[in-house]
This record gives sequence, C-alpha cells and structure tokens, in this order.
Amino acid sequence: MNGKAKAERKKTPRKRQVSGDTYFVIMAGGKGERFWPLSTELVPKPFVSITGKKTLIELTVERARRIVPLERIFVVLGREHLPVARKCLPRLPRGNFIIEPEGRDTAPCVGLAAMMLYRLNPNAVMVVLPSDHYVPDPAAFSRCIRETVKSARRGDHLVTIGVPPTRPETGYGYIKTGRKISEPSDADCFEVARYVEKPNLPKARRYLKDGGYFWNAGIFVWRAAVLLEGLKNHMSDLHSGLLDFYEALAAGDRATADAIFAGLRRVSIDYGLMEKATNVLVMPAPFTWDDVGTWTSLLRVLPKDETDNVLRGKTLTLDTDNCVIIADATPVATLGVSNLVIIASKNGILICDASKAQEVRQIAKALGKKQ
Amino acid sequence: MNGKAKAERKKTPRKRQVSGDTYFVIMAGGKGERFWPLSTELVPKPFVSITGKKTLIELTVERARRIVPLERIFVVLGREHLPVARKCLPRLPRGNFIIEPEGRDTAPCVGLAAMMLYRLNPNAVMVVLPSDHYVPDPAAFSRCIRETVKSARRGDHLVTIGVPPTRPETGYGYIKTGRKISEPSDADCFEVARYVEKPNLPKARRYLKDGGYFWNAGIFVWRAAVLLEGLKNHMSDLHSGLLDFYEALAAGDRATADAIFAGLRRVSIDYGLMEKATNVLVMPAPFTWDDVGTWTSLLRVLPKDETDNVLRGKTLTLDTDNCVIIADATPVATLGVSNLVIIASKNGILICDASKAQEVRQIAKALGKKQ
Repeated sequence: MNGKAKAERKKTPRKRQVSGDTYFVIMAGGKGERFWPLSTELVPKPFVSITGKKTLIELTVERARRIVPLERIFVVLGREHLPVARKCLPRLPRGNFIIEPEGRDTAPCVGLAAMMLYRLNPNAVMVVLPSDHYVPDPAAFSRCIRETVKSARRGDHLVTIGVPPTRPETGYGYIKTGRKISEPSDADCFEVARYVEKPNLPKARRYLKDGGYFWNAGIFVWRAAVLLEGLKNHMSDLHSGLLDFYEALAAGDRATADAIFAGLRRVSIDYGLMEKATNVLVMPAPFTWDDVGTWTSLLRVLPKDETDNVLRGKTLTLDTDNCVIIADATPVATLGVSNLVIIASKNGILICDASKAQEVRQIAKALGKKQ
Repeated sequence: MNGKAKAERKKTPRKRQVSGDTYFVIMAGGKGERFWPLSTELVPKPFVSITGKKTLIELTVERARRIVPLERIFVVLGREHLPVARKCLPRLPRGNFIIEPEGRDTAPCVGLAAMMLYRLNPNAVMVVLPSDHYVPDPAAFSRCIRETVKSARRGDHLVTIGVPPTRPETGYGYIKTGRKISEPSDADCFEVARYVEKPNLPKARRYLKDGGYFWNAGIFVWRAAVLLEGLKNHMSDLHSGLLDFYEALAAGDRATADAIFAGLRRVSIDYGLMEKATNVLVMPAPFTWDDVGTWTSLLRVLPKDETDNVLRGKTLTLDTDNCVIIADATPVATLGVSNLVIIASKNGILICDASKAQEVRQIAKALGKKQ
C-alpha cells in the first residue's frame, strides 16, 4: 500500500481493505418460489428488490465491496441466472461469475468456489455469504467480517458467524456455543458445542432465555486450504468429485464436468462438514441480520406505518393493519383487512394470509406446472 | 302488423313486439364509486362488465330489445358518459341518447324523458328501467313487462314492478301491497298500501315471513301523460321546471336549459311522486332480480366454485373460500384467505373485506381527490 492509499484509508475508513488474500464468495442460488410474484424461476430472490430499491444481491456485493475490491468478489450462480445477475451487477468482472452447473445445495457450491480460489491463491481466505439476506448496518457487518478474516487467516479453523438471537425464532437453525477461545487473536470466538435444527417454540424460547445460542446465519470465513482439508476428511466423495469436475473442465469437456457436478450429493455445508468437523469456531455477529425468508419477514425488517403496515408503491389503506403491501405495477387499495401479504407485480398478484407466507412456494409451483 | 310479421311472431315469440306506442327509458346515471376499480367516474357501473362479458347496459338494452325495436329504446345519461355509452351500444340510434345536464336523482330524469316522449307521441307508454341491474331470465322479464304495459296502456295508473323477496334483505326498499285489483285487465296488480324504507334485519325477516311485501326494483310502467299529470299534481316545481327547460332548449339556449336542470330539486321518483300519488299499482315480478349494489352481491348472482368463490379471469385459489376474485388484467393467486373481494383491473387493485363492500366508494372518493 503506498502513501496515498494509506492516507485515503485514514480519511475513509469504510474503504479500508483487508489482506489481498481475502475473497468473497456470494452464493446466489434459489428457485424464486417464496417471493412470487416478484421473484420467478428466472429471476429468483437475490435478483429482486425486496427490502428496498436495490436488489438483495446488489446490497450484498456492496457490503463485500466495503472490505475487498470488486475483483475479489465472486458470485456462484446457475447458468440460467447469468443474464439477470449481470444486469444487477454490471461492474462485476465477467470472470467473477462462477457457474454452478446445477444447484446441489451449499456444500458443492462452497467446494467449487474453494477449489477455484485455492488454485488462484493457495493463501486465499474465503468469506462465504448468502446473496439474499438483510443486513441494515453494513459498517457493523464490515467490522465483524474484518475481525473474523484476521482470525481465520492466522488459524486452521472453520469460522461461522453466529447472530445473537433477539426473539424466539423457530425458522432458523441455532449454534450452541462451547468454550470461549482464549487466544488474543481469536478474542471473540467460541468453540461450537453443537448445531441445533430449527427448534419448536418452547425450545426457541429456552435458547433465548438461557443464552449461549446463536442463529446460524450461513456466513462462513476460512482459508480455502482449511476448507478443502475439511472436505477431504469429512466429505471425501465431494472432494474427489470436485477434483474430477475441474479435471474435466481443464480438458475442455464441459459436458462431462456438468455431469460430474450433477452427480454430486445434494447436501448443505452445515450438515456435511460443519456439524462433523472439530475445528469449527463461532464468531458472534454484533449486527442486525435477517434471512428475509418469507414476505412476512418484511414486517420485521422494514419501517411500518401507524397501523403496522409495510407499504411500498402506490397504496391506499383504509381500516387496514399488519399487512405487507407492495404495489410495483398497479395501485393497490385495501379496506377492512388485516394480516395479509399483498404483492402486485407485472407477473401476478398475490393475496396471502400472513401466517401462510411459507406456503407461497406452492403457488409458484402450481403456476410453474400450468405454464 | 302484416301477415308476415304475424307468422314470424308465432315462430319466434321472443321477438314479439308490444304496441308501437311503447318506449323504454333506461336510466344510466351513477358515479362509478361502488365498483371501483372496474368502474370509474368516466366509466360507471352500467358501462362495465360486472356480471359477465357484456356490460350491464348492453344486457339491459338486450332485454328491452325483446319487447320493442331499438328505435324505441332511450338511454338517459350524463354528457361525460356519452362516448362510453356509444361504444357499448353502437347500434342504438344516436338520437336515442338523452343527455341529462346533471344528475338530479330519478324524478328529474324520468320527467325529462316523459316530457320528451309525450311530445313525440301523446299516447306513449314508458317503461323505466335502471341500466345496471341483474335479470338472468330475460324471457320471464319480457312476459312480465308485456303484461304490465298492456295494463298501463289501458288505465291511468302508475305501475311499479315489485319483486317477491327471497331473503330478509336490508339493502332494498319494500312496497307493502294493499287490495288486489279485480279488473281482469289488471289481473295481477295490487294497490300499494305503503312504501317502506330499507328495513333493519328483524323487520326484513318479518316482511319475508308475513308476505305481502315486495322489493322495490325501480322499474316503472306508465303512460307519459299519466306520469306528467302526476308530476303536475305532486311535484309542480319539477313539472314547471321541465317545461322551462324544454322551452330554453327549443329556443336553442342550451346554457339556460342546463342551468334550469341543474336547479331542479334532487329527489327520487319514489319519494317525490310514488309515495304521494293515489293511482299507484304494484305488479309482482315473477323473475329473478338483483340490484347488484356492491361487489359482494356477485356472491348471490354468479355461479360459485366448490369452496364458494366467484372467480373470473386467471385465478389460482389455494385454501380460499367465499371470495369474489376478478382478474381482468394480471393473474391473481390467493392463499389462506376468506370473505374477501379482490378486483384486479388496469385501473387498480382492490382488496376488501366482503362485509365492507358498501364502503368501496370511500376508496373511489379518496382516489378521486388524490388525482
């Protein structure tokens, strides 16, 4: 870093960069079912403006961009989403879109990126981010990720970000923490006692009361080499499959490569590796985070009007409360309704009881079959 | 009637015409508020397809057309609705649209038409119809109107059509019948004991149980001369106002004519004349009739699916019952909702609790102010 860059770093701390070995891997899969009608099969959730004007993936890249230059931000996605992804991220280098031949859950996705990064730079530290989560305070996010990167670069750990729960949420997985790490470099990290599947409400309440539990945010930080070592030890089928995949690619045989990838076991990185590995640490995340899993999660994350409605676009609400209303196409007027999700886009109009937002995928599926 | 026409009459009874002195006057006023977003200020309810593909006024003219030729069907409407009316009724002679300078309720509207028809033909018998009601059996309607016309032509009575109630409806006015008329020509008519304002539910239940009460359908049959005599006796201000109006028109002074009309008392023909006159008869109407006063009335008049929804257009309903859904523009999908009115048109999208359908006019008004 030259003198001028150093000076700039002091003036604009949000532009401060971490080590040149740090890379972001943004996972942009998804079927676009739970956010119908705004999201569709061709334009799934990451590529849709859900929490504001910008698409979720734009916001995710912007968060990463505070920490590393665009050149070190990679997006893993399906081939069919490449056009819309390029539209959302026109400034991302074209080579930074990593095509996943088929969605096989997060373990193959993360492995694919790790192997690529390791070949690019054997010292690579990877930050793995979902592309469609909500983080309203990018500065707090940056501080946390920078700390975690520092820690991961120095050690042989698989670090996962744990969000301190603020409510008895039954829709997330939890991580029970173990011993606090004593080394100064890992000051804030904990060992992981165990992973906990989505709990029922009494359990979720207990976790909140007892403390020592974190939400599993699906954000990971590790050296690519450490991750690959973990895969080799705990998911040797995936590790050797990925080696074959890259070999076929190197030979210019994309059809074989695709077939190999499609044959990989469909499994999440949590289930396949994190729950088995002994070198996992959890880093508490002092930032607001939400997975924005359904339309009703907007009632949590967006500002509400005086009768608890989240409104966007041209709306007129009379005697209406606790509704999410998005009028992206035609004006929406409501009268005497409560607890509804109303989404009007050019693709279609959804009217759904707030408690059924999880089932919106049924509609997307039914419409998919009709087409 | 020549021999050929007589023969045709036998073959196609539905084309049978009544006396050449019979005229229909179809009242097409309205502000388009209760059927927002399909109806608007410029395209009110009569000019909208609400019960099916055809507009309500088309269906009304078709019913009249079974009884008289188009030349003897007149439509009274506001100047601002002339373009849409001509579009709905391209075959109606242009001179048969009677412009009402301003909506002043039904008495001035009916008087305007009566005076015009009386000047055209002193023997004119008028059938006055609202333009926006639902009558699914035009044949039964024709039979009833023909009988009523016969009766009205021979007498000096003001005949109103009374629909036998089929439910304890609180949204309609009622007519309590008196003595049955004994003259054979008026075989089915009753004298009117009294007019009853919209009752509360206990009263409406009693009317239904007791019998002798009819719904006031706003359909009238009388000789123009008898009506004008009635106005002269009971609404002399309106009668002389209309004489002044036509005098100004004859002098080519439309501005004065308009001002005179705008100065007429705003009053219904029921309140202004029918409740006061002593020569009123009620003719029972053996046909299904509904005023289609709100969106929820479609739950009464249109066919329902197996979970009691009235659906039109591209709809997908999951766990949805007792809803009215019209998807004229974009597809509508619902999940886990009940008792809603959902109307999606290019003008806007309405989501309204079924019990609040009467208040949709609030939305139309609020939007009107916004523009």
